[in-house]
Amino acid sequence: MSRLNRQWTLESRPTGLPTLENFRLKDSPVPEPSEGEVLIQSLMLSVDPYVRGRLRPVRSYVRPLDIGEVIDGGVVGRVIESRSATLAKGDFVLGRLGWQDYAVSDGVNLRKLEPDPKYLSAALGVLGMTGLTAFFGLLDIGQPKPGETVLVSGAAGAVGATVGQIAKIKGCRVIGVAGSDKKAAYLLDECGFDASINYKSVSNIRKALKDACPNGVDVYFDNVGGEISDAAITLINLKARILICGQIAIANRERPEMGPRNLLYLLINRARMEGFLVHDYADRFPEGLAQLAEWVKSGKIKYRETIVDGLENAPQAFIGLFRGENVGKMLVRVSPL
Amino acid sequence: MSRLNRQWTLESRPTGLPTLENFRLKDSPVPEPSEGEVLIQSLMLSVDPYVRGRLRPVRSYVRPLDIGEVIDGGVVGRVIESRSATLAKGDFVLGRLGWQDYAVSDGVNLRKLEPDPKYLSAALGVLGMTGLTAFFGLLDIGQPKPGETVLVSGAAGAVGATVGQIAKIKGCRVIGVAGSDKKAAYLLDECGFDASINYKSVSNIRKALKDACPNGVDVYFDNVGGEISDAAITLINLKARILICGQIAIANRERPEMGPRNLLYLLINRARMEGFLVHDYADRFPEGLAQLAEWVKSGKIKYRETIVDGLENAPQAFIGLFRGENVGKMLVRVSPL
Repeated sequence: MSRLNRQWTLESRPTGLPTLENFRLKDSPVPEPSEGEVLIQSLMLSVDPYVRGRLRPVRSYVRPLDIGEVIDGGVVGRVIESRSATLAKGDFVLGRLGWQDYAVSDGVNLRKLEPDPKYLSAALGVLGMTGLTAFFGLLDIGQPKPGETVLVSGAAGAVGATVGQIAKIKGCRVIGVAGSDKKAAYLLDECGFDASINYKSVSNIRKALKDACPNGVDVYFDNVGGEISDAAITLINLKARILICGQIAIANRERPEMGPRNLLYLLINRARMEGFLVHDYADRFPEGLAQLAEWVKSGKIKYRETIVDGLENAPQAFIGLFRGENVGKMLVRVSPL
Repeated sequence: MSRLNRQWTLESRPTGLPTLENFRLKDSPVPEPSEGEVLIQSLMLSVDPYVRGRLRPVRSYVRPLDIGEVIDGGVVGRVIESRSATLAKGDFVLGRLGWQDYAVSDGVNLRKLEPDPKYLSAALGVLGMTGLTAFFGLLDIGQPKPGETVLVSGAAGAVGATVGQIAKIKGCRVIGVAGSDKKAAYLLDECGFDASINYKSVSNIRKALKDACPNGVDVYFDNVGGEISDAAITLINLKARILICGQIAIANRERPEMGPRNLLYLLINRARMEGFLVHDYADRFPEGLAQLAEWVKSGKIKYRETIVDGLENAPQAFIGLFRGENVGKMLVRVSPL
């Protein structure tokens, strides 16, 4: 096979916000599937904030990537060659295949997808880890009850927008915080949030949150951390649940930032704050995916994608995550369907 | 009746650490019990950190004390006059009767105590709210399992020392942090902790904690907050439980101090941090008290009291709490038994 496999590898570890220099695009031969394996062509690639953690030299909940290693990412691809009994040429699959044009797999960690082109990319978002994160995080840890106030940070991101819509389905009042007027409008107009705040346009985030949450906050679904969380925690109600899902505001800090010590709010309100990773719910993914698919297909949950064209632009898309350049799921189109 | 009732009242709201000037000792007539009431003479008074919150003008989990109001505190007393059908002259009772020599009560919020002089004062400590706080906080929220590491801050205080001993009964490795060599020795020698740290004598609290907790921290029972908690949270294990019981390190701050933003540790470890107030467990107090009494009477739980003599010294005893002047429960002897 004469084609080349372009692979984005880790060239150097970033300090602070990653730059293009931290990544290197390398040409490799397209790998050959062995007996039992398939060759997959990448169609759509997911860039995700958690990958920032893997660029550090220290173990977090996943091991660090080595210098020279292909960058991690979820991929929707098409089987273009099969030596497997379970997957055929032309099948669509989902797998953590990384930032590259082609990959081989023995199929163990692949999910075969319905060939409906309308929802293929959603397997990387609302019908995949993103949706499952929103689903289990909100319902299992947040435990929202009808009439309660649910506050979501990073609300126009793929997880946040889904969280808010599930909370609406559950009868909650939902407030979203996002980083532009366009995103704030998207939450109101398209996602059905009750209120939204562009934190960049308000002079006092605490006051803005307080005005938007006159009955306080029962569930705070936190995707960002930092000053928005500092303000949110001062507004929690008795027995509030705070869900730490992401801390993108501090993802690129080399040392912990300082913020107000606010644990007294937890004590006074007998509130709970809990860190959450969707992988802990792996045995319940089918249940979550079935419910999400029903909501998406019936129009109860809407989703958006921000698609960057071309594998060559994957690092820009990744860096864009930390600049808030996405509405909904940030994806890279590696090859047209 | 010609005797006088000395009452400590709130003279002014403290800024920072309370001073003697914030309190005023007032002479009042001894109150007369009405039909159905009893007159109680205070024997032993408990001074408690939570009262600092009541000196502020803002509502916390209890309403603020008014200027001129008698300061709140638990009291073990003796009925010296009874017009009640359920309590007789000579009965010993426990109640939140405040910093004063005498009080009348209709008995509703009193607990009648066994007349065993050995354990009367313990009703204000290990066999009262203090012990129940340790019991329900550790067992219900901390959920320690045999072999796990339990770290306790404020460990030589009445709650902390009890927490550590219950954790030992449950088969845990227990590490205590306290504020003097004497306290650290008390934890080791008398309370059976596996290790203890005088945080005032170590140059790097994180390193000291790390050395003392080579397997990380599964349960952190926090009575103090501040820098000890900053360090502790960096050492938590997967699925760790952090229990916010007290924040005495910041009790006297007028504005939130700054500390490192460390919620990423919760996320990485899917850990839980929860505020706790013993009052939420009121319907299970009998169960807790029965178990604590068994452990105390069989010698499995030891306790100490730091007794300050004379109601006139109640403010000093209270202020001493924030200076770490107590080992075990801080009490004021109002009248000899």
